[in-house]
Amino acid sequence: MPGTAAYQTVVHLADGRELIYFDAEAGAGQDRAAYPDTRPLDPRPGAGESRFDPLLGEWVAVAAGRQVRPYHPGPDVCPLCPSTATRHTEIPAPDYEVAVFENRFPSLSGPPEPPDELIGPLPHRLRRGGGRCEVVAFTSDHDATFASLGEARVQLILAAWTDRTANLFTLPGIQQVYVFENAGAEIGVTINHPHGQIYAFPYLTPKMSKVAQRGQAHAARSGGNLHDDVLAAELAGGRVVLQNAEWVAFVPFAARWPYEAHLYPRRRVPDFTALDDAQRAAFPAAYLDLLRRFQRLFGDDAPPVPYIAAWYQAPAAEPRAVALHVEVFTIRRAPGKLKYLAGTESGMGAFMQDIAPERAAERLRALAP
Amino acid sequence: MPGTAAYQTVVHLADGRELIYFDAEAGAGQDRAAYPDTRPLDPRPGAGESRFDPLLGEWVAVAAGRQVRPYHPGPDVCPLCPSTATRHTEIPAPDYEVAVFENRFPSLSGPPEPPDELIGPLPHRLRRGGGRCEVVAFTSDHDATFASLGEARVQLILAAWTDRTANLFTLPGIQQVYVFENAGAEIGVTINHPHGQIYAFPYLTPKMSKVAQRGQAHAARSGGNLHDDVLAAELAGGRVVLQNAEWVAFVPFAARWPYEAHLYPRRRVPDFTALDDAQRAAFPAAYLDLLRRFQRLFGDDAPPVPYIAAWYQAPAAEPRAVALHVEVFTIRRAPGKLKYLAGTESGMGAFMQDIAPERAAERLRALAP
Repeated sequence: MPGTAAYQTVVHLADGRELIYFDAEAGAGQDRAAYPDTRPLDPRPGAGESRFDPLLGEWVAVAAGRQVRPYHPGPDVCPLCPSTATRHTEIPAPDYEVAVFENRFPSLSGPPEPPDELIGPLPHRLRRGGGRCEVVAFTSDHDATFASLGEARVQLILAAWTDRTANLFTLPGIQQVYVFENAGAEIGVTINHPHGQIYAFPYLTPKMSKVAQRGQAHAARSGGNLHDDVLAAELAGGRVVLQNAEWVAFVPFAARWPYEAHLYPRRRVPDFTALDDAQRAAFPAAYLDLLRRFQRLFGDDAPPVPYIAAWYQAPAAEPRAVALHVEVFTIRRAPGKLKYLAGTESGMGAFMQDIAPERAAERLRALAP
Repeated sequence: MPGTAAYQTVVHLADGRELIYFDAEAGAGQDRAAYPDTRPLDPRPGAGESRFDPLLGEWVAVAAGRQVRPYHPGPDVCPLCPSTATRHTEIPAPDYEVAVFENRFPSLSGPPEPPDELIGPLPHRLRRGGGRCEVVAFTSDHDATFASLGEARVQLILAAWTDRTANLFTLPGIQQVYVFENAGAEIGVTINHPHGQIYAFPYLTPKMSKVAQRGQAHAARSGGNLHDDVLAAELAGGRVVLQNAEWVAFVPFAARWPYEAHLYPRRRVPDFTALDDAQRAAFPAAYLDLLRRFQRLFGDDAPPVPYIAAWYQAPAAEPRAVALHVEVFTIRRAPGKLKYLAGTESGMGAFMQDIAPERAAERLRALAP
């Protein structure tokens, strides 16, 4: 695939999980691979299970083994820092650029088994296995943030996202590959080291399912692509925050979060693997600019802004009309004030927005570097 | 309607909002009504607006005036405590049992106007007005919790929910009446005084919309009612936590939250107004038992358990096949540990459950008084 100029080196951790070093230079990975994982690890948990909620028609992943996962470990026990002679982490090498590995406490794991129907007055549906959860360590520097990285590193991360997307879509039964980053303790991040995650789902997530359905209904009604039409509407006089030759970020018309922006490539592609060289080259500047504006929303001296970056990629199944884009949003609504998901949001899925989307776009526009 | 043995007294606050005292005894309300609201209040904000998200097909309420609402006021400025000679709150009387009033910072408000189509390459849809947000103060005791109330008070609260439901469904364009309680700072509650809320929506919330659709599909396929069949499955060998002659609480098969229980009347009704006397009489014991088990989950000395109680009532439109029930859930997954809605949940609507629902039901069952 074009533009994925990264060198990969695959090793295995002590419990058999894969770890992949992504490097910009040839040879670096081989050096890292010389360091084995010598930890005495427990065997990996069995296949996860997902259950179908008959009222809402959504799958819920149940992974009871995850309760023991790390919860705010101190920096001296960070599992994403490189290993040293005396401290063995998830990453055996003494340094790395970008490292991807299978999550030790996955919500989705194991080979897919045929779904069960649990018979009763109402058949409950359950599926075991299918899916994979990966961690993407963005840098060996524990104290960095994504926004503090350089463009070359973001290019390497994009190459890793691209390669993993291609790879995960080849696993049996995978319907959606979801790349995301949780940042900040207020989001529930339990490990501060800069990292993201990739979940390969054996079913469509609820939001993806809705977006795909609505896109098909829109195409049937208008002949157009829903994402193209949304982007055109924003460019024609909407809430654009920033743009370069290949990418456009805007606050959506019906934003749910205090500050929320969606970043699209101008030319629609279904997933990372379909980005061309020009789109890849222009991505780091646009994305870093966007994240840095989010950080400046509450002042340069504010604690790191909590945010979620959620990548939509088209599902595996045709027509694959969902457009690759990332939705970035923060739950901070003012310095020291958070947007909580309470009774309306968590109970009924109904969002209450306190900040006019046009005002949010104005503020983000004004925060140019 | 049966069983709503409560006396109501309606007064108006200084800015014109309605306040209704609900009392178990005749005459008490008239005494309370003798106290006028003498505060110099700003005029009420204009009609709220809701915007349609074209990607997800959901309405989002936008109420930019709410950013100034109270955020964790100290007990000396609690707006839900009764007024005194020197401190004027939202409730002018020097004492009350249950008080319901229009929210000063509503997300939904004003008379409904016809929806606009904002023309562009993609027409954006916006609606102004429609809906109403109410606060339900459960007691004048600032330091109480719902679980600490007596059965008679819960009966009065049920009467208030019933009356408000009947009343709000008569407002123009109301499609859903949503009764809920947010409890605990971790849920984002900014006022500790025990209270709940009622939102009257001029559209169906996303979850209600899905549940109603799935219920209709289930009826078309099987001839049965989805809620009846779920309840029957739980009673036949599921995750029942507690039951009495009229009510049954269970952990759902595909629970999303660390501890979650749904409380249904055995005989299905569409909303509060259709409960009969026996169902009303049996409700307080069942609901209090459930809430108290939630409180005991983390030890008697644990800080008050954060929870959301979300009432489903059938939408206004036929077939009204959605069953009245309350879903109670906590975001606390272990002492000192919270379940956050991060990238999978907030980004894609995909829930990751750490605790097997059968294990959660066992624990809740074991916590009988």
